Amino acid sequence: MPIPTIEWVDGRIHLIDQTLLPNEFKQIYCDDVESVWEAIKSLRVRGAPAIGIAGALGAVLGIWKSKATNYPDFAAELKKVTDYLATSRPTAVNLFWALTRIEQTAEKHKDRVLLDEAQNIIEEDRARCRAIGQHGLNLLRNGDTILTHCNAGGLATSDYGTALAVMFSAHESGKNISVYADETRPLLQGARLTAWELMQAGIDVTLICDNMAAQVMKEGKIQCAIVGADRIAANGDTANKIGTYNVAILAKVHDIPFYVAAPTSTLDLSLKTGDLIPIEQRAAEEVTEGFGSRTAPEGVKVYSPAFDVTPAHLITAIITEKGIAHPPYEESLASQGD
Amino acid sequence: MPIPTIEWVDGRIHLIDQTLLPNEFKQIYCDDVESVWEAIKSLRVRGAPAIGIAGALGAVLGIWKSKATNYPDFAAELKKVTDYLATSRPTAVNLFWALTRIEQTAEKHKDRVLLDEAQNIIEEDRARCRAIGQHGLNLLRNGDTILTHCNAGGLATSDYGTALAVMFSAHESGKNISVYADETRPLLQGARLTAWELMQAGIDVTLICDNMAAQVMKEGKIQCAIVGADRIAANGDTANKIGTYNVAILAKVHDIPFYVAAPTSTLDLSLKTGDLIPIEQRAAEEVTEGFGSRTAPEGVKVYSPAFDVTPAHLITAIITEKGIAHPPYEESLASQGD
Repeated sequence: MPIPTIEWVDGRIHLIDQTLLPNEFKQIYCDDVESVWEAIKSLRVRGAPAIGIAGALGAVLGIWKSKATNYPDFAAELKKVTDYLATSRPTAVNLFWALTRIEQTAEKHKDRVLLDEAQNIIEEDRARCRAIGQHGLNLLRNGDTILTHCNAGGLATSDYGTALAVMFSAHESGKNISVYADETRPLLQGARLTAWELMQAGIDVTLICDNMAAQVMKEGKIQCAIVGADRIAANGDTANKIGTYNVAILAKVHDIPFYVAAPTSTLDLSLKTGDLIPIEQRAAEEVTEGFGSRTAPEGVKVYSPAFDVTPAHLITAIITEKGIAHPPYEESLASQGD
Repeated sequence: MPIPTIEWVDGRIHLIDQTLLPNEFKQIYCDDVESVWEAIKSLRVRGAPAIGIAGALGAVLGIWKSKATNYPDFAAELKKVTDYLATSRPTAVNLFWALTRIEQTAEKHKDRVLLDEAQNIIEEDRARCRAIGQHGLNLLRNGDTILTHCNAGGLATSDYGTALAVMFSAHESGKNISVYADETRPLLQGARLTAWELMQAGIDVTLICDNMAAQVMKEGKIQCAIVGADRIAANGDTANKIGTYNVAILAKVHDIPFYVAAPTSTLDLSLKTGDLIPIEQRAAEEVTEGFGSRTAPEGVKVYSPAFDVTPAHLITAIITEKGIAHPPYEESLASQGD
C-alpha cells in the first residue's frame, strides 16, 4: 500500500476511506470512538485483520483522554469502550480477538499504556501477512491463474493482505500469475479494491461479475481459488464474504483447489463448527441503491447476508502464518491456534 | 403486463424501454429498422421470445415503405433487412427463427403482406407462454419457494413470460408460492424487471445478489429453480443469461430441481450440443459503470460473457408449450421440435 490502511498518528486514527475507492484515494481521521465505530460499520475500514486493528486502535482512542485516577475506574471505562466497539460488526472474530487483547493487556499491566499493544497488533499482522504470502506462494505454479472473491488484500490488513499476500509474494518471487477478481456484490470490494490493488502491484487482473465465475472455471481459465476469512471454526468451516461458499462449490465441481488464507487471529477454536458463527445481515439499500441510482422497485423485499460459511470439506487447505493446514482441520488447526 | 411489451401500432413499433425500469415505465417508438436494431442491441427490448417478435416486426418495418415493383426486388430488400437485424444479438435463436419465418412467408406468398405473419408470431408466443404456465404449474406445490435468474417474464415475451409464466399460473391457480429473484449482474434484469413483474402480480418476491443463491439454498429456502432460455440444443444443453450455469450447479449440489421454461421456438435442433451456441460478449462498461458511477479502476480488464451454457445433465426438465420434456433430451426434444 502506498500509505498504511490504518495507523495511529498523534492521538488520532488515520485510515483510508475504502468506500471512496477506486475513484478517490483519501485518508480520513477518527478523533473519537464513535467515528471509529461508524468507520467499521459502514466499511470505511473492512477486512477481518484490519477491523481487528481498527478495534484495538479505537479502544486506545476511547480511553486516550481518560481522567480515571485508579485502575478499576479505568478498566470500567475501557470495558465500556470495547463493549461498544464490539457491536459494530458481528462476524469477523479478529475484532473480538483484538479487543480482548487490549483488555488483557490493561489487566496485566494495570495501567493505560495500551497504544504499544495496539501497535504490536499492527506489527504482528504485518509479519503474519508476509508469512502467509511466503507459505502460500508454494501452492502456485508459474503461469497459474487464480480466482479470488471480495478483498483480502493490503486494504483488509495492515498492509499486505492474506489471500492477496499469496499473489503478491508469488509475483515478487518472479512467478508469472494472473488473477480473476469477482466483483463481489453488493459492495463491490472485488471491483473497487482487489482490482485496484492488483493493478497497483502490476499483477494481471481481469474483473468478472460473481455469476461469471462458473463459466470462467468451465472454460479452464482458473487453476485455483484463494480467498480470505472472517472467522474459522475448529473444524475448518470458514465464514467469509457472501458468495465464498458459492465459489467453493464451483471450485469443487470443476476440480479446482480452493484455499483460504488467514492469520491465526481469525481462528475461533471455541466454535466447534461454522454453524455457530453469527452472520451479519446488511441493509436492503446496499443491494437496491448501492451506487447512486435505484436499481430495484421501491419496497421490494431484500435478503442480504454479508457472509456465508464454507464447509470444511470444500476447502483444500488453509494458509496461515504458521504454515499450510490440511484436513482434518480439527487436528491441523488445533496445532496452529494461539 | 399493463401494456404490451412490444406491439405494432399504425406503421411503427411501440415497445417498453426496459432499460428505464423500474424507475420509469415508458413506451418508445421505432420508426425505422435502425432504431429496432438499436433497441435489441441495447436491451431496450430483451428476452429471447421478445427479441424474436422485435425481429419480425422490425423486418416488417424495414420493408413497410418498399417501392419494389416486383417480387425479386422486394425479396432482395427484405433479405437486406433481415440480415441486418440478425447482427443485433447472436445468442438467442428466436431472433433467427422469427426472421426466417418472415422470409419464408414472403417466399410462399410472393408478396409483401408480412405484418399478418409478425402478428401470428406474437399471438402464438402469447399462447405458448400460457401453455408453458399451465404445464409448469403442476411442478409446483402449495407453499413452494422458487429461485429464478434474470427475467423470463412478460417483458421477455409478448406478455406472460416463460419461467415467470409458471409462477403466474401457479399463483392464479391459487397456489401459495414465493420467489427469490437473483438480481442478475451486470444489467440487473432480476432486480429491475423480475422483482417488478412479480410485485405487480402480487407474488411474494425477495431480491438477492447472485452470489447469495448458494446460501439461500443451504438455508433450505428454495424448493426449485426455474429459468428461461435463449437457445436449447438438441441434447438439452441450454444457453441462458450468464449465471444460469452457476445456479444449475448450486441446485444440483443442494438436491433442488432445476427447470428450464421456453417455447419450442427456442429449440435449435440443428445444434447437437450447447458447445456450438455462440456466446455474446458485452462491453466492459456494463460491469464497471453500470450503476451510473464508476465502480472499478479505469483501464481494468473485464471479461463479460452475456450468456452461459448449462449442460443438460444439470437440467431436471424442460417445460415447453407442448409439455414437460425429461431426459434423455435427444428424444424428448426431438418429438417437440416444430
